[in-house]
Amino acid sequence: MREAYHVELEQLADHLAGMSVQVADAMERATRALLEVDLALAEQVISDDAKVDDARAECEEQAYALLALQAPVATDLRTVLAAIHAAESLERMGDLALHVAKAARRRHPEPVLPDAVRDDFARMGDLDVKLARRVEQIIKTKDVAAAKDLETEDDAVDDIHRHLFTVLMDRDWPHGVAAAVDVTLLGRFYERFADHAVSVARRMIFVVTGKMPGYGTDDEI
Amino acid sequence: MREAYHVELEQLADHLAGMSVQVADAMERATRALLEVDLALAEQVISDDAKVDDARAECEEQAYALLALQAPVATDLRTVLAAIHAAESLERMGDLALHVAKAARRRHPEPVLPDAVRDDFARMGDLDVKLARRVEQIIKTKDVAAAKDLETEDDAVDDIHRHLFTVLMDRDWPHGVAAAVDVTLLGRFYERFADHAVSVARRMIFVVTGKMPGYGTDDEI
Repeated sequence: MREAYHVELEQLADHLAGMSVQVADAMERATRALLEVDLALAEQVISDDAKVDDARAECEEQAYALLALQAPVATDLRTVLAAIHAAESLERMGDLALHVAKAARRRHPEPVLPDAVRDDFARMGDLDVKLARRVEQIIKTKDVAAAKDLETEDDAVDDIHRHLFTVLMDRDWPHGVAAAVDVTLLGRFYERFADHAVSVARRMIFVVTGKMPGYGTDDEI
Repeated sequence: MREAYHVELEQLADHLAGMSVQVADAMERATRALLEVDLALAEQVISDDAKVDDARAECEEQAYALLALQAPVATDLRTVLAAIHAAESLERMGDLALHVAKAARRRHPEPVLPDAVRDDFARMGDLDVKLARRVEQIIKTKDVAAAKDLETEDDAVDDIHRHLFTVLMDRDWPHGVAAAVDVTLLGRFYERFADHAVSVARRMIFVVTGKMPGYGTDDEI
């Protein structure tokens, strides 16, 4: 049983790594659609989101089967539950990329972003995509040090997000309220995407070390 | 074992019902703090949020213990996993109430909301609190019909949320960009709170019927 359990757990990890690639690609394309006012790319992200939802459902099924058939206990049990949480976060990251793509589609053929904040979103997009690709590597390699580094990247996203507010709050913001509303929501989508990437990385640290960083020791059972 | 399992499952349900009351109270107070520019009340919501986080951690521990010690299968297994998801959604609802309270604190002694949207937020607040209190009842009574009704209430929140955008996008919005940014974010917090309430109710429908509404039949294992 131990052998079968670990083979199935590896398959589940592969599935989660695959979801990380899906949401990294989605955010990369959504950001390009936003910056380059590319409707076809936005439509692609929107129609591809169903695949992320399906992948999440498959991960859950796989995790449920593992729990039902192997009845793991202690750390093994927590590992499977961490995977279920990670699948939920990854699906949410897909939703956030979808929201970005929908914003690009809604305003098409007008650009959503005023030039003043284009670079900020390009950088947030780069960071978000990098975070999701790191998550894939962390799931594959179980590299705890890399997982911890993710928090630094997330800080960079938070810095840009805060900077956006100072740009918006400037009395001389000349782009009107509608653009400010779009920038506010989009900024939040990018920031939440990064938060969820960190949350997946933290769950992976737990899977490897048995300890959840900053969330108690989580090893009572 | 079956007997012990059901006693423990009832305790877990009581815990989740308690969390629903906590987040309903938090959103009620946060909305009052926002509308009445009440700093003390905002501070109370902010400091009380740790209790919601603790309650979530306790629910997870209880669910993990149930899984480890009883090794439930089939619908029993899915019931416990639904409870873990519900605890996560309820914690998130607490976070959203916290965000509202923090907005009230950040602008104090200035009001966050222009008079033009005060009534909209009062109504969204009422609906959100009502949703969270209904969730408590649904968890206690396992009333599937009531759980389904929740979707209608959520539609009402979505309607107000959409209406807010038309108010914001009006060329004559006279309150400036900073107020528009606050209204945009706050509107999203109330809308997400309602979404999470619906998500908890849907999990409870699953617990009772073994079927997840709109998410496949979920009964393969």
